Amino acid sequence: MVELQDLESRLGERLIRDPELVAPYARDSSRAEPEGQPLAVVLARDTEDVAAALAWATEHRVPVSVRGAGTGLAGGANAYPDGVVISLANMTEVLQLDVANRTATVQAGVITAELDALARESGLFFPPDPASARTCTVGGNIATNAGGLRCVAHGVTNDSIAALVVVLADGRIMRTGARTRKNVVGYDLTSLFVGSEGTLGVITEATVRLKPVPPGTPRTFRASFTTLEEAGAAVTAIVNGPAQPEVLELMDAFSVEIIESFQPSGLTVPAGAMLVGQTVGLDAAAKAETITAICRAEGATDTEISESDSLLEARRLSNPALNARGLKISCDVGVPVAALSEVFQGVAALAARHGKRVSTVAHAGDGNLHCTVESPDSVAGIAEADALIDDITKLAISLGGTISGEHGIGSVKRHELPWQLDDAALDVQRAIKAALDPHGILTPERGI
Amino acid sequence: MVELQDLESRLGERLIRDPELVAPYARDSSRAEPEGQPLAVVLARDTEDVAAALAWATEHRVPVSVRGAGTGLAGGANAYPDGVVISLANMTEVLQLDVANRTATVQAGVITAELDALARESGLFFPPDPASARTCTVGGNIATNAGGLRCVAHGVTNDSIAALVVVLADGRIMRTGARTRKNVVGYDLTSLFVGSEGTLGVITEATVRLKPVPPGTPRTFRASFTTLEEAGAAVTAIVNGPAQPEVLELMDAFSVEIIESFQPSGLTVPAGAMLVGQTVGLDAAAKAETITAICRAEGATDTEISESDSLLEARRLSNPALNARGLKISCDVGVPVAALSEVFQGVAALAARHGKRVSTVAHAGDGNLHCTVESPDSVAGIAEADALIDDITKLAISLGGTISGEHGIGSVKRHELPWQLDDAALDVQRAIKAALDPHGILTPERGI
Repeated sequence: MVELQDLESRLGERLIRDPELVAPYARDSSRAEPEGQPLAVVLARDTEDVAAALAWATEHRVPVSVRGAGTGLAGGANAYPDGVVISLANMTEVLQLDVANRTATVQAGVITAELDALARESGLFFPPDPASARTCTVGGNIATNAGGLRCVAHGVTNDSIAALVVVLADGRIMRTGARTRKNVVGYDLTSLFVGSEGTLGVITEATVRLKPVPPGTPRTFRASFTTLEEAGAAVTAIVNGPAQPEVLELMDAFSVEIIESFQPSGLTVPAGAMLVGQTVGLDAAAKAETITAICRAEGATDTEISESDSLLEARRLSNPALNARGLKISCDVGVPVAALSEVFQGVAALAARHGKRVSTVAHAGDGNLHCTVESPDSVAGIAEADALIDDITKLAISLGGTISGEHGIGSVKRHELPWQLDDAALDVQRAIKAALDPHGILTPERGI
Repeated sequence: MVELQDLESRLGERLIRDPELVAPYARDSSRAEPEGQPLAVVLARDTEDVAAALAWATEHRVPVSVRGAGTGLAGGANAYPDGVVISLANMTEVLQLDVANRTATVQAGVITAELDALARESGLFFPPDPASARTCTVGGNIATNAGGLRCVAHGVTNDSIAALVVVLADGRIMRTGARTRKNVVGYDLTSLFVGSEGTLGVITEATVRLKPVPPGTPRTFRASFTTLEEAGAAVTAIVNGPAQPEVLELMDAFSVEIIESFQPSGLTVPAGAMLVGQTVGLDAAAKAETITAICRAEGATDTEISESDSLLEARRLSNPALNARGLKISCDVGVPVAALSEVFQGVAALAARHGKRVSTVAHAGDGNLHCTVESPDSVAGIAEADALIDDITKLAISLGGTISGEHGIGSVKRHELPWQLDDAALDVQRAIKAALDPHGILTPERGI
């Protein structure tokens, strides 16, 4: 293919064409299957490589998918047949750590947990911590506006992003944002690109905000409840109470059972649900006491406070444990946090009506739920599970919620967009896409 | 004018055409003069009134300016000759206060301090607090992504906005965002409209995030320094120290002198500069002690801790005091906070070179400076002051800063845009504007 040779002469061995080597770059960690194999993978080394690839793709009208570590759960990084994959996994340089201004400037392929570890050497940390933090990339976090366990205290990824370097569809390089805390200079292009899932441009560098590591020893806490509704009510009471946790997670009985059978850690399966969380600061122990006391007042049968991280480790195993069981039809809905009890009741009623068992884990302090449906891995079984997930998603929206809290839309949730967005908002989204990517080469037909 | 009668028949007495009644709506609080008088003012009562006005304006290609209380400082709300002004000042309804989810849904014309006061009745507060909080509107805060005194602790207005109702240029009504804490569903249109200065649509309603009022009695603190550079270094040390203030403001000697001569409150004019701030929480007193100790270690000659709010009141008088002196040529630049000392040195050098005296107040914890130039109120005097402000602005950019921290671009700072934004970013801004307002009726030729 003549066109590809142009790009190859520019990139040399950073362009991969061998189908066997290309194949692993064709899909992300979602259940969505790519429609076909891409032509080539660009292993970008720097922003200029990405610019060259996009200028070429625009010239030849080749669809482009973009990936960091490929940990996405919505199909957003799946490749296109005869498309090109831009991988940022080799862009792993930390360009600057500015301790006095609490920022770091990194290439997009830096591993999230590695940035966090580097910052901690200077008494700072990087707040976003998706469950995949040890493998996912900062660029991927930004492209999906990823969440994680610490959002209840520190917000989503966007809250930690100061500035970006973005390559536009035609290969031009753009800088957004500023290193200052405040910046009202034209439209907030940083926030526009955060969460844009590769559809408006390719984020190649980011200046992120760091926070000081709180002093003292963190405490983890656990509270077990007879019913999921009681646990939900406790969450509402905790987030409106005097002691704010840094982490506040919920696992229902079925999810604890799945996690314990995947990798036993001695957790007792609760009758209804378990809250686990973490407090930080010099008053971490007192805050954990306050929170567990609220839990007991809300009906917890059993509570525990510890200096060990093992309770949160169990929570982080949820996704691998579900995958190991072949369970992959799940949702990422969010509700206002005071609606948690109601959404749990509703999910139980829907599960009963559909005749399915549902495992629920939640970033409970954020009102963000991942419900996974137990269903046979067959065409019929998947369709049945999808139907239940659709109903759960519509339930969340009816409670003032959202179809995606942290995974993004990708291809998996695209049919749900009109359930949440009105026609005007859909039109505006599409108008922005058309204005910035007029030939539709960037992650086409996904995200919005 | 036949066209205007169409709109009048729809709006009745909510359309004002009497030139004497129209005149007060022609300008904001900036030094920018409107180019002419508008045809009419729409005193919108609800979103539908705004929709009717914009549909009409699009049909007849009439330029529209939008205003809340008219407290803007960048000329963004100034009227257009033969244009229409949409005033949201009468849209003052609080539609919902949701204490359990810590949100309020308000019409755009609600006064910022009144929303805050209402929230406090339920133990919550509205974090944004621009100096004009007692007169400005929530909608205006959102349209400019306003800052204020508490940003160092709580971020800018955008950090407190969950969802919007926006009327698009053609009169269609759009909802953005969600009441959930996390929401990754298409592009972040909420953040796009926050700070868009009336150029993309008219924000008519907002769901804002509230925070719990910290327990205990706040403390204010003051520290006086011999030089501005020492005060700047102290700010960097404080924000990187163990005790975080809720407010951290700086006034140089000249600004204290101006404030004291405007409304004496017994403040001693410092040799160089004064920091004033506030701590909150049960440990407010201990935090204030820690902060004043840092100030003394950084060279403060005199410190004070108090339970009275009068120190912050003095700071809030800065703008009225400058206005009373006829001083109106100022900037709103920001720098990374560790660059404060350097920017102060640079400003002093530039002032000396230009032969002018500069008064500086700063939201120091954010690195956001307002430098005002003393210069005769003549064409030549204003041009001289403008030339110095331009140099200060370029200095801030050279230190990794921004041309506007919280006032926005409006018409006053439009010539500065290319100093901060690269060509690609300017093109993207314009492409978004053209996509959403193809006939250019919304606050044309301003903002971007």
